[in-house]
Amino acid sequence: MKALVYKGPKDVAVEEVRDARVERPTDALVRITSTNICGSDLHMYEGRTPMETGRVLGHENLGEVVETGSGVDRVRVGDRVCLPFNIGCGFCENCERGRTGFCLTVDSDTPGGAYGFAAMGSYAGGQAEYLRVPWADFNCLVLPEDAQEKENDYVMLADIFPTGYHATELADVSPGETVVVYGAGPVGLMAAYSATLRGASRTIVVDRLPDRLRLAEKAGAVAVDDSRGDHVEQILDLTDGGADKGCECVGYQAHDPEGNERPERTMNDLVASVKATGAIGVVGVFLPQDEGAPNSLTQEGKLPFDFGQFWFKGQRIGTGQANVKAYNRRLAQLIRHDRAKPSFIVSHELPLDEAAEAYRNFDDRVDGWTKVVLKP
Amino acid sequence: MKALVYKGPKDVAVEEVRDARVERPTDALVRITSTNICGSDLHMYEGRTPMETGRVLGHENLGEVVETGSGVDRVRVGDRVCLPFNIGCGFCENCERGRTGFCLTVDSDTPGGAYGFAAMGSYAGGQAEYLRVPWADFNCLVLPEDAQEKENDYVMLADIFPTGYHATELADVSPGETVVVYGAGPVGLMAAYSATLRGASRTIVVDRLPDRLRLAEKAGAVAVDDSRGDHVEQILDLTDGGADKGCECVGYQAHDPEGNERPERTMNDLVASVKATGAIGVVGVFLPQDEGAPNSLTQEGKLPFDFGQFWFKGQRIGTGQANVKAYNRRLAQLIRHDRAKPSFIVSHELPLDEAAEAYRNFDDRVDGWTKVVLKP
Amino acid sequence: MKALVYKGPKDVAVEEVRDARVERPTDALVRITSTNICGSDLHMYEGRTPMETGRVLGHENLGEVVETGSGVDRVRVGDRVCLPFNIGCGFCENCERGRTGFCLTVDSDTPGGAYGFAAMGSYAGGQAEYLRVPWADFNCLVLPEDAQEKENDYVMLADIFPTGYHATELADVSPGETVVVYGAGPVGLMAAYSATLRGASRTIVVDRLPDRLRLAEKAGAVAVDDSRGDHVEQILDLTDGGADKGCECVGYQAHDPEGNERPERTMNDLVASVKATGAIGVVGVFLPQDEGAPNSLTQEGKLPFDFGQFWFKGQRIGTGQANVKAYNRRLAQLIRHDRAKPSFIVSHELPLDEAAEAYRNFDDRVDGWTKVVLKP
Amino acid sequence: MKALVYKGPKDVAVEEVRDARVERPTDALVRITSTNICGSDLHMYEGRTPMETGRVLGHENLGEVVETGSGVDRVRVGDRVCLPFNIGCGFCENCERGRTGFCLTVDSDTPGGAYGFAAMGSYAGGQAEYLRVPWADFNCLVLPEDAQEKENDYVMLADIFPTGYHATELADVSPGETVVVYGAGPVGLMAAYSATLRGASRTIVVDRLPDRLRLAEKAGAVAVDDSRGDHVEQILDLTDGGADKGCECVGYQAHDPEGNERPERTMNDLVASVKATGAIGVVGVFLPQDEGAPNSLTQEGKLPFDFGQFWFKGQRIGTGQANVKAYNRRLAQLIRHDRAKPSFIVSHELPLDEAAEAYRNFDDRVDGWTKVVLKP
Repeated sequence: MKALVYKGPKDVAVEEVRDARVERPTDALVRITSTNICGSDLHMYEGRTPMETGRVLGHENLGEVVETGSGVDRVRVGDRVCLPFNIGCGFCENCERGRTGFCLTVDSDTPGGAYGFAAMGSYAGGQAEYLRVPWADFNCLVLPEDAQEKENDYVMLADIFPTGYHATELADVSPGETVVVYGAGPVGLMAAYSATLRGASRTIVVDRLPDRLRLAEKAGAVAVDDSRGDHVEQILDLTDGGADKGCECVGYQAHDPEGNERPERTMNDLVASVKATGAIGVVGVFLPQDEGAPNSLTQEGKLPFDFGQFWFKGQRIGTGQANVKAYNRRLAQLIRHDRAKPSFIVSHELPLDEAAEAYRNFDDRVDGWTKVVLKP
Repeated sequence: MKALVYKGPKDVAVEEVRDARVERPTDALVRITSTNICGSDLHMYEGRTPMETGRVLGHENLGEVVETGSGVDRVRVGDRVCLPFNIGCGFCENCERGRTGFCLTVDSDTPGGAYGFAAMGSYAGGQAEYLRVPWADFNCLVLPEDAQEKENDYVMLADIFPTGYHATELADVSPGETVVVYGAGPVGLMAAYSATLRGASRTIVVDRLPDRLRLAEKAGAVAVDDSRGDHVEQILDLTDGGADKGCECVGYQAHDPEGNERPERTMNDLVASVKATGAIGVVGVFLPQDEGAPNSLTQEGKLPFDFGQFWFKGQRIGTGQANVKAYNRRLAQLIRHDRAKPSFIVSHELPLDEAAEAYRNFDDRVDGWTKVVLKP
Repeated sequence: MKALVYKGPKDVAVEEVRDARVERPTDALVRITSTNICGSDLHMYEGRTPMETGRVLGHENLGEVVETGSGVDRVRVGDRVCLPFNIGCGFCENCERGRTGFCLTVDSDTPGGAYGFAAMGSYAGGQAEYLRVPWADFNCLVLPEDAQEKENDYVMLADIFPTGYHATELADVSPGETVVVYGAGPVGLMAAYSATLRGASRTIVVDRLPDRLRLAEKAGAVAVDDSRGDHVEQILDLTDGGADKGCECVGYQAHDPEGNERPERTMNDLVASVKATGAIGVVGVFLPQDEGAPNSLTQEGKLPFDFGQFWFKGQRIGTGQANVKAYNRRLAQLIRHDRAKPSFIVSHELPLDEAAEAYRNFDDRVDGWTKVVLKP
Repeated sequence: MKALVYKGPKDVAVEEVRDARVERPTDALVRITSTNICGSDLHMYEGRTPMETGRVLGHENLGEVVETGSGVDRVRVGDRVCLPFNIGCGFCENCERGRTGFCLTVDSDTPGGAYGFAAMGSYAGGQAEYLRVPWADFNCLVLPEDAQEKENDYVMLADIFPTGYHATELADVSPGETVVVYGAGPVGLMAAYSATLRGASRTIVVDRLPDRLRLAEKAGAVAVDDSRGDHVEQILDLTDGGADKGCECVGYQAHDPEGNERPERTMNDLVASVKATGAIGVVGVFLPQDEGAPNSLTQEGKLPFDFGQFWFKGQRIGTGQANVKAYNRRLAQLIRHDRAKPSFIVSHELPLDEAAEAYRNFDDRVDGWTKVVLKP
């Protein structure tokens, strides 16, 4: 079958690879019809992770079940399914409590597995014609009757919609609250969109790229440009002295407006932007080690974090990758009943063959390339 | 001063009464500018409660502070304030945990006090020119700069908006869930409105009065007419076998479509309409004794309740009057930032002098009399 | 193999039956070493349920894995496992949210399945030499190294310890609170034991059988005898006017002290015994239909419930069978670290061959027969 | 009246000062009968805070009401009361939600006020004969009939018992979980004690002072000595790879075993000691600025925090001073019903006149000086 293969830093190609197939009785085989390129794919693309060459990328996958193992009870051939990017067994201590992003059974050194992902097991990705889905009954979200019509909406349930939502859940965003979101990439936009869905009275999004700020406004948020230097003051003004809640959707590659990598910047800005007793949800990725980081402190995964201010304000932080399964059923209902339309961020629909070029453009942050859906 | 006085069953009149005044150091005196007639006022108006004649009615009050006692620290003369219908001291075991509807300090035999209300203390109501507000620093919600412009919205924070919201809170309505609301009076409409604000994927409202069903649709809900006999089936169809959550906004005076009073009807319908593991919030009023009830069981406050079905489905119920202060600050932010406009249910704005006639029309459920705001 | 077979009302016998075996790739086969007789078994034994004759009883099971299907990944032959009485698939909407007592996949007409249970699927029970365990990776709780030494403690994790705990969870028992438990059978005792483990400041247990009241005191509770007629007053005195929380551990076969069946009695007593704003957890079983009930109302599953009082007090109720898997891992840790010893209620350890006689004695509530563990 | 006055770094003296008195209608005057020296007093004693000379210290106070203002409704002369160390108004946005440690009304530049405390308003402390208590109805915990008999227990409700409990609440310690507490000073011991009260299956306390480790064992915990170098490994062994929850009870003056101040040490150890998806409660004090800190980073309140590891493990942190009123009523019930006896940590009861010497000994961490109660 054809699949997008990681060949090395900034080098991916669509090639023939060994066919995906049912390997265990609890597996299903899915023919992929939509698979997104994610910001996390760029971390691997850029060569800043321990991704093995030769592996197939792609963790935001949707398709049709074409075969099931003998131990699969629920999922049926022909079902349209969206696959959470993180793979869970369904029966370990973490999965059974809904923390499927930290599955203890997957073949990974640390809790949590994913399709086509560095350091999260050896599972192949879905930027391919077919995908093997382990523990299929647990992992497949079977989609309703409007699955094909709204495919670009439902595919967002694989990762970025639940991930953005997770930021608001970690921050416990409640009706009537003000929320500030740092980062207006696809995840930040989904966080802002989720905050509004949950009843925030005012959502503020901080970024500096004009096309992203425009999308933030489209999502109902107030857009703040942090390249002007007074963004914290603007937020304090807009929120009577501090937002009730904050979301970090940037991660370790945060830069200051001058272009210097400053991984601690958004976290310290969030502590300053959120009021005393407030909470912050962090879904931007931070790494325990990072050779590419700007100094010795950050290379070993440490941030010079404003802990004193954080403690004095009595704030809370929740972190980590989204437990997609904790949210995808309910978010699917919002799509089904036309209350949510997350595809508003899609900028490009492309065939799999154009994936390599799409990676290049997305990585270069070419204006207007906000979200790419591949159609194998 | 002038005030609306309860003279006996179906008999109210605007009369001269003793001026309201500051009585304790912690009191404030408020000049009332908006005061609603509530469905609960009708319970008293109809003479079915132990309301004393001569008392002033009115518990949905908004106005301007004109005097404060020597122990008032926060509220200032000139502040525009909305008063929660339930009066709390702020320091008893219930108030300090946010359960201000069950204050243990108020001069009432049972937990909880209110302005102009039967069996909830001797406090005068606010359908009057002035109102004495006890523990003013605790009870006054000081309104923002758009208080006058949106007065008909903010006055809904005294009772029905928080009460409708409370139903959704008792039912723990979460984003993506389906919700069924029984009753499309002002409180039921506010419950439906709140469910949508909280991110419900589908909200269904059950009633039989055409003007109410129209308003339910205006609030974004699916309207179901229960006079047709198959409303539970309709709800099961609309929700794949049962709503995630339910709200009771009718109370003890529920009637079947034939006009017979059947207090247990909505609760048993809710158990049938909500799925297994679901939750039900009950803000419709039920009484421990009720001489006017249709039979000996219900006269002593008992309902023939489908407890077996309820238990088998593993459902939960939360009940009781709304703790208004638990919600009014945050709901005010939704009004302030134009995310909520609860005044959409107002049908009439009238001077205080026309209050007696307004009671008559509202009690007769004259078509189109959904909500009256008096302007003293 | 040998197993205890239901032959009809008050008639059970140990007989040869078809061997339990692995039927699906996700099954495991367990050799049973401990299996309790439960109060729910008596409901079936007494013939008051739709239990089919010929079926094997027993839903509180513990044993050793002797075979696993090809789709089983975690559980290994030789593992000592305790089986939750309710069978869950692990991947339906309810199971994935931890509501394993309401599994939608089991072969039952209503949500939820169990071993050897009326109306909860066709699964064989474990009062037998062997038991087939469906979805074995999900359902087996693998026990730690002290499994054999503390087998009588760990077997309580199949049902009554989590069920008693569930009552306290439904009532949200928090440190420092006062708790009243109605019913001092095995489940009530476990509820009282759990309340104390959770930090209740005072736990009160209501019953009238002397051996049960003694065990309640052994569990650290204050015992109240409700055959004296003033138990509600006693509780109000002991709790400054009402317990913070209450637990119903009696169910539909509640009797008044004169011996008349009065299914509504404990619920109405609980509403009276618990203070305003309090919560009640109901794990005693109530039935949607019950031909054996004392009158037409209760025969159709309705209770004459003090709903008016309940609403006026703003109380909450949570109900339903325990989701055993939501609790059994953590309760196992309490046993392992010697912080809990639920076997204190065991009165008899008997071979399987004596099961029929044990049913007779337990059903007759012979003094001292509080809990029987069968050892096949 | 006599009171302990702060004269400058390491210089306190009992002197005659102006009598405390009722200043506002909502004040009460309390004759102090027990007042503790707290670890936080040492921060001020050591001169590392902006404490003004001439002020009276003491924020852990208990006594008898001797006078009340005209606006006090609940508290009566003769009541025995324990005063939360943080002063709340009861009606600001934070107080009304139970966050009384962050009161917005107190005369302080940042949220939160306290008696005799640097940077938390100008309120006099209670290491004195009398204390003025603002908003007395809100702030006084009226004690039950055994107040005098258990005075050394109840006085712990002013600060350290709720503060230790707060650490377990921030970490959401649940029954059956394993908990690691860093720091076995009075607050750490109360955190360990609280963890056990809440049903932890195993509580581990890390410190290096022998008398503290002995008290930790007395509180039912496993004591780990971190001067041996392998404490994290020990914890991982004792908890199957990581504690479920962690508590930080050391604060910014953490030292490594060699005696170097390393403010980030306990937080980074906690991230390593707690498992993925776990939570950490931080009640040890951290400062936004600290001239006495060991390097430029920590002087500006920043910690080199293992954020990458923290994020990868998906952990949560909650911080800040305890909202004492959120817990003191319920913890008082545990004392009253003999379920908790926090006075087990008291090492010295001394008259007020010996306060200066007590400060010296406590500050020098003289062996056996774990907790001093002054009796004015």
